[in-house]
Amino acid sequence: MISFRKELWLEAPTRRAFINITPQVEQCLRESGIREGLCLVNAMHITASVFINDDEPGLHHDYDAWLERLAPHAPVSQYRHNVGEDNADAHMKRQIMGREVVVAVTDGRLDFGTWERIFYGEFDGRRRKRVLVKIIGE
Amino acid sequence: MISFRKELWLEAPTRRAFINITPQVEQCLRESGIREGLCLVNAMHITASVFINDDEPGLHHDYDAWLERLAPHAPVSQYRHNVGEDNADAHMKRQIMGREVVVAVTDGRLDFGTWERIFYGEFDGRRRKRVLVKIIGE
Amino acid sequence: MISFRKELWLEAPTRRAFINITPQVEQCLRESGIREGLCLVNAMHITASVFINDDEPGLHHDYDAWLERLAPHAPVSQYRHNVGEDNADAHMKRQIMGREVVVAVTDGRLDFGTWERIFYGEFDGRRRKRVLVKIIGE
Repeated sequence: MISFRKELWLEAPTRRAFINITPQVEQCLRESGIREGLCLVNAMHITASVFINDDEPGLHHDYDAWLERLAPHAPVSQYRHNVGEDNADAHMKRQIMGREVVVAVTDGRLDFGTWERIFYGEFDGRRRKRVLVKIIGE
Repeated sequence: MISFRKELWLEAPTRRAFINITPQVEQCLRESGIREGLCLVNAMHITASVFINDDEPGLHHDYDAWLERLAPHAPVSQYRHNVGEDNADAHMKRQIMGREVVVAVTDGRLDFGTWERIFYGEFDGRRRKRVLVKIIGE
Repeated sequence: MISFRKELWLEAPTRRAFINITPQVEQCLRESGIREGLCLVNAMHITASVFINDDEPGLHHDYDAWLERLAPHAPVSQYRHNVGEDNADAHMKRQIMGREVVVAVTDGRLDFGTWERIFYGEFDGRRRKRVLVKIIGE
């Protein structure tokens, strides 16, 4: 069994953002040399997500509006977590979108459906944050 | 390490449906010959889910009504993704229910609690779609 | 490849609770002897979650209030699942928080970001329930 590990660093200039990290994960897979196995990609921060969906700006706008409706940022005083913080909503948005994805590796490639792309979902940005890529297989 | 891959094809006759795919995944596991490992089951489409819950029609009705309340299909004009599309809500419902499950394989079986069953959740049906089963182990 | 399996038993004294199970999962990893691989932790019950987030009581209070707003327990008559049951809302809350986490194992440790901790989320407690820990690697 081979195992491969790499951290990706990201810094969104805005509080919330969706960033396509598929090319970086594909690069990790090439570096690993793994042909068959599983690839875990997870946010290392608890106010961010890694998820798989469509690379379409209209949809990302819809996601942002929808998440803000389900877990509004303001008023920040509505959340007990926000004592010296203002990011409680980010902890909720991240649960809906998910912490991690596990992707099959087949014949040296991410085994994706036609429109699947991996995104980093940032809900408390404007600082450097990390995503972990761990691949096991052979 | 052994790896096994198979695509399951599904076609729901309605826009939304929940389909128990546990027997097909169990069949994959038997075909693989794997006794110990991990089994990934994921939707290959971004308007569908794979999740684990109860095989109970009342609950599935409740899920459908609940998801429709959290991410309504209509009016389709409320979503920017719906330019030439009408499935933005399906991309949201799928995030709540999840893209994938990872199931332990122990002694040649899916290592489940009493009521755990694997479902395909369709939110934009009436066409053929795929689920990926990838099993690694030995 | 080595594989390790253990069930953790939990009994929350209340209907809903969040319990930090990170120390038990770390103990499993030590017992396994695995240095590189993947660690799956999943609820074996369909009204409970395993998720990763912050060990902060204010946040847990916020999660509880937020989940109750998105999927209210009462009136129980609003759910068709509640025929002889009263836990339909628990099946929904569990979908938002998730069934499982997959954690990278690197150099014999859970490969976590600074604030990542594993929680058992109970939504229909007051009875003994199980969490599965499955680790594969070498």
